[in-house]
Amino acid sequence: MNTATLLISCPDQKGIVAKITNFIYQNNGNIQHADQHIDSLTNTFFMRIEWALENFNILKENIGESFSSLAESFNMDWTLYFSQEIPRIAIFTSCVTHCLYDLLLKHQQGQLQCHLPLIISNYPQADKIARSFNIQFFQFPKTPANKQAQEEKEISLLKEEKIDLIVLARYTQIFTSQFVNEFPNRIINIHHSFLPAFAGRNPYQQACARGVKIIGATSHYVTPELDAGPIISQDVIEVSHRDSLEDLKRKGEDLERAVLNRAVRWHLERKTLVYNNKTVVFD
Amino acid sequence: MNTATLLISCPDQKGIVAKITNFIYQNNGNIQHADQHIDSLTNTFFMRIEWALENFNILKENIGESFSSLAESFNMDWTLYFSQEIPRIAIFTSCVTHCLYDLLLKHQQGQLQCHLPLIISNYPQADKIARSFNIQFFQFPKTPANKQAQEEKEISLLKEEKIDLIVLARYTQIFTSQFVNEFPNRIINIHHSFLPAFAGRNPYQQACARGVKIIGATSHYVTPELDAGPIISQDVIEVSHRDSLEDLKRKGEDLERAVLNRAVRWHLERKTLVYNNKTVVFD
Amino acid sequence: MNTATLLISCPDQKGIVAKITNFIYQNNGNIQHADQHIDSLTNTFFMRIEWALENFNILKENIGESFSSLAESFNMDWTLYFSQEIPRIAIFTSCVTHCLYDLLLKHQQGQLQCHLPLIISNYPQADKIARSFNIQFFQFPKTPANKQAQEEKEISLLKEEKIDLIVLARYTQIFTSQFVNEFPNRIINIHHSFLPAFAGRNPYQQACARGVKIIGATSHYVTPELDAGPIISQDVIEVSHRDSLEDLKRKGEDLERAVLNRAVRWHLERKTLVYNNKTVVFD
Amino acid sequence: MNTATLLISCPDQKGIVAKITNFIYQNNGNIQHADQHIDSLTNTFFMRIEWALENFNILKENIGESFSSLAESFNMDWTLYFSQEIPRIAIFTSCVTHCLYDLLLKHQQGQLQCHLPLIISNYPQADKIARSFNIQFFQFPKTPANKQAQEEKEISLLKEEKIDLIVLARYTQIFTSQFVNEFPNRIINIHHSFLPAFAGRNPYQQACARGVKIIGATSHYVTPELDAGPIISQDVIEVSHRDSLEDLKRKGEDLERAVLNRAVRWHLERKTLVYNNKTVVFD
Repeated sequence: MNTATLLISCPDQKGIVAKITNFIYQNNGNIQHADQHIDSLTNTFFMRIEWALENFNILKENIGESFSSLAESFNMDWTLYFSQEIPRIAIFTSCVTHCLYDLLLKHQQGQLQCHLPLIISNYPQADKIARSFNIQFFQFPKTPANKQAQEEKEISLLKEEKIDLIVLARYTQIFTSQFVNEFPNRIINIHHSFLPAFAGRNPYQQACARGVKIIGATSHYVTPELDAGPIISQDVIEVSHRDSLEDLKRKGEDLERAVLNRAVRWHLERKTLVYNNKTVVFD
Repeated sequence: MNTATLLISCPDQKGIVAKITNFIYQNNGNIQHADQHIDSLTNTFFMRIEWALENFNILKENIGESFSSLAESFNMDWTLYFSQEIPRIAIFTSCVTHCLYDLLLKHQQGQLQCHLPLIISNYPQADKIARSFNIQFFQFPKTPANKQAQEEKEISLLKEEKIDLIVLARYTQIFTSQFVNEFPNRIINIHHSFLPAFAGRNPYQQACARGVKIIGATSHYVTPELDAGPIISQDVIEVSHRDSLEDLKRKGEDLERAVLNRAVRWHLERKTLVYNNKTVVFD
Repeated sequence: MNTATLLISCPDQKGIVAKITNFIYQNNGNIQHADQHIDSLTNTFFMRIEWALENFNILKENIGESFSSLAESFNMDWTLYFSQEIPRIAIFTSCVTHCLYDLLLKHQQGQLQCHLPLIISNYPQADKIARSFNIQFFQFPKTPANKQAQEEKEISLLKEEKIDLIVLARYTQIFTSQFVNEFPNRIINIHHSFLPAFAGRNPYQQACARGVKIIGATSHYVTPELDAGPIISQDVIEVSHRDSLEDLKRKGEDLERAVLNRAVRWHLERKTLVYNNKTVVFD
Repeated sequence: MNTATLLISCPDQKGIVAKITNFIYQNNGNIQHADQHIDSLTNTFFMRIEWALENFNILKENIGESFSSLAESFNMDWTLYFSQEIPRIAIFTSCVTHCLYDLLLKHQQGQLQCHLPLIISNYPQADKIARSFNIQFFQFPKTPANKQAQEEKEISLLKEEKIDLIVLARYTQIFTSQFVNEFPNRIINIHHSFLPAFAGRNPYQQACARGVKIIGATSHYVTPELDAGPIISQDVIEVSHRDSLEDLKRKGEDLERAVLNRAVRWHLERKTLVYNNKTVVFD
């Protein structure tokens, strides 16, 4: 279906929903989905609204301009997306490939609405997988000495390929702030713990050492501070004293891929909004 | 807070949301919550919208009339509720009292916005509990011979007390169709299985015999067909070969009270809509 | 590690555990894992015990005979397995391949201790997948007219390949009783509902129609009665009125593959015992 | 049923299970439950074994002595419990009483095998509840200045009442190390987060601020370091951007009481063993 989607946030006040829905109605649009949220602590209004473009009176390329005066009057932050402009994803991975595999299979089944032109890794293992799915593969090994230079090459490549979203599918390198700041709210990571517990290295070992009875996985937008960005999705599974470190890793795998997949899908469907280092997810 | 809430369903068409939100905006109402859903199979539109009555231009007693012409133009089924008209609940129970206790405690803590004037049972056990919470208790023992007569007494009492919602907190008697039809979508039951599995008597024994690895609880609106009404909420818990029938009952108790409580709260907050023997829950 | 595992069931009586553990100790075996269960309703004793064969005084090929007199004295049903005798699996599938893919990937990662020489389908789609994992593929299309003949060919092939376990990874054909009875407790199916709810065809459509708030998946040993065999593992996920039939299928996929995978792994690790159409799972 | 239960830990070596089960068998005991675990990292063996005392050849008061030479030969840490020696519990609480209420109701239903002679609080609110369940209530308000003195009074009272287990049912005061060290592995706390996330004060506010999508509750044995003791049980529930701080508290309540209840029950049933600041739970 050919639709437009608006993601909006602004100070809450009377009449916002009436004005937005009138804009769509009077131009002959048919609302497919609408969801809103008011954060009462900060008095902030959030909305996601999607409507069919068939018979809509305004040409696609003019909708933004037509909407802008209304947007200004409410002091909105807003973004307009079109279902026919398919986002382009790059996946970063390392040696552990179950999350990569899952994204590729879900994409192949048509569950992720995106183009997938690029896989990047610091290791060579994913090359063969990339090839079997007909996707370009680039290896950028990183050392403290060459990290900045390699990131610059990655940035060039990502821009050349017009990448909209970077997905870190168990990528083991930490990006510099410069890299992260190039793609604000456009890098999604999977961390293999229920954050904020067990941030940083070796979360399953940390979980084992602490003797927790539940382990988890967290997908979040990447910010310069490690494992501290806005959380998009989390899930957990029970463990017991019987589970070894290997068992935790095995049980965690299914969580990681499901949680990452869900976050990427929500992002692609324009269901996520970031504010105050948190997310609104209109699922 | 002093609010009005509209629950609406109608055939989907362009302009519904714009017209409803304009009605509120032009009369100076401030929307607190709005949620909508389109069932694409039946092309049905559902909405829950709640707005502050402070400074609203229409008197409370006139809102319904003012809204009715708009409602007619879209062929709406609609109900209007006011937060200051507190619903009145009657609880039916039998010998097993953990669900009753939980409703009373949650009510005492202020988590259920209702009056609770009445507890009815076919057994005497709940009398003492009712008294300790200062609630009237009535016992109507039932036999096949006296069932209809007893139900008539119950109906009189429920009407006298202006009861809006009947909650069956592990009540073991099955009502006649006549009784059920007096209170359409206004009787909530808790059944101790994940329906449609194990409907009818002794669901934990059925679960034990079948060797399931998960047990559940289901709250639903009561219809004349046993355990077949619209499902409001469900939850489950894992079990294993180690769990005896007694263990299933114990584990199930926590589910039952949580699931029933949630369903009752959603109903009281006007978050449930019934259609096609299913529910929309605007949670 | 080189181990032997005994799975035992017998009428409960004094001294069973002492006698079994003495048998292992006096022959210089070191117990790695032991778990037991007493079903008090039927007074049946179940045990799984695994010990290291290094320095064990009895030759592998003589252990069964040495144990048999003890076994007879307690009237045991027992089976002896050796970790170095790797089971051989055949996977049956149809058009929907996510469960097949997951088994192949988990096997590739070393999480399933088995050989995987054979994939069989009534459709051609899995051929390409089989080839990419270097596994033989056979297509046996079935009609009511040729079903028995095709099953006979399948049985021949399975016996020729010395298959120990048949895994139905979303296989859409129903086997005849003759086929099922050839492989008692050695066929594992995944059904895409929380059985006993929604047995038979199109469980997601049934779930949609009933308006449940939770969907599930169930892996079970196949018996001649459809979807009624001993349950090995189940899991569920929440759904809401917002979820279309397509959403249920998508959400269910992750359940199905995880639940099937777990059941197959438990079977391969000799952790499952069947009795009274139920399972004991020593996980 | 009249049983004895041994909880054992020791360095793993050959013959332990054989020797223990022979001890029971040769003295004519019938094993009801047995569970064991080997921690392969530390090569430690753990066991819980329970047997019927009916017809057992050794008098109850002599079992410990009879077992001790065997125990010494394996260098065991061991404790012997008898089902007929009912443990005595004291509950500490503050203003928030849902956990207290749940323990009292579960005790009343016969689900917690203990005596419950004592409720202690720093606030007066629980007095009325204590009285309605016929339990002694003591109020010990605490300030930094009087804390040590008040704790000494509490210790005297606990010893006088021969208290075996202290349960902190949302008790808001932090104990001194002296107090904690008087009751090693005999104080169970409920913390309203999934530890180690959100230790310390106001975990729901911390969770709200971080924007997590899951909240949890953790029961653990109390050690001198705050919220860092061995974890016995944890559970979680999903939350979203729609949930206010009040919603988190409400949703968390059901978790807290269920998780605390489970931990207390496991302790009373002698199913918990502490090692390395972790627990083995033979559930």
